[in-house]
Amino acid sequence: MTGIKCFEDFDDDFAYAFEVPALTPAQVIDFAEQYDPQRFHLDAAEAAKTHFGGLVASGFQTQLLCFNPFCRDVLVHSHAVGAPGIDSLKWHRPWFPGESLTGSVTLVHRAASTRRADRGYLGFLLEAAAGEAPVFSMRWTVIMLTREGAG
Amino acid sequence: MTGIKCFEDFDDDFAYAFEVPALTPAQVIDFAEQYDPQRFHLDAAEAAKTHFGGLVASGFQTQLLCFNPFCRDVLVHSHAVGAPGIDSLKWHRPWFPGESLTGSVTLVHRAASTRRADRGYLGFLLEAAAGEAPVFSMRWTVIMLTREGAG
Repeated sequence: MTGIKCFEDFDDDFAYAFEVPALTPAQVIDFAEQYDPQRFHLDAAEAAKTHFGGLVASGFQTQLLCFNPFCRDVLVHSHAVGAPGIDSLKWHRPWFPGESLTGSVTLVHRAASTRRADRGYLGFLLEAAAGEAPVFSMRWTVIMLTREGAG
Repeated sequence: MTGIKCFEDFDDDFAYAFEVPALTPAQVIDFAEQYDPQRFHLDAAEAAKTHFGGLVASGFQTQLLCFNPFCRDVLVHSHAVGAPGIDSLKWHRPWFPGESLTGSVTLVHRAASTRRADRGYLGFLLEAAAGEAPVFSMRWTVIMLTREGAG
């Protein structure tokens, strides 16, 4: 017994809750400089001229920081072996510095491979909000080894 | 004349080509430690035990590094004001250290807002490959101010 989860260990009741601490403006700007240097992620004065009204996190930073807790708490303790893609991703509204997020991940799809007994596919829905306001959601598929595949 | 592109400046012939330099194993591991600490992104020996056969970049690192050239060369010189979401994202195969990527971004959808004269929606398709092998594709929508909205 390793405690590492296989495909069979994820049932319909799977639910995971997480929090993402608020970002500082400096953290928003630092990420933007590396990856997404649009003015409303880089400069508060420029951002104030846009419909955002102020500095907002890159949507990719939102995506990564919402994914990270689930990865650390669930995926790394599983026989996940990658993902073929993202089925749907929505930025419902911008994530502003100073706002923490709360979120959940639920299992929305589960299918054994029809071709290989060693794996199955798990569809997860991640949803995150600032207070009552939805900020981000992502539905994606993870490839997970079965007991046979992990054994 | 500012040279900053508006919605009207993106026509059906829009095409952008880019290259992403190869990653070192250290760059793959550094990103994984921050955001996506799964064993096949963190540790070459552990990765060799999986179906990947060796260390592979986080799919999110692939996503960010493929997006970044388009952001720097096109979006920051436009009146882009965010994105509502990603319509489709596929990791066709893993991105291995030492492989450079070549890619393109094309315009696949263009729609004026039916409610607001100041903006329109541009659907872009980004595709990246290692040699002939498709690695990554992403289709997403960008909100772009019209001349009226930018003026």
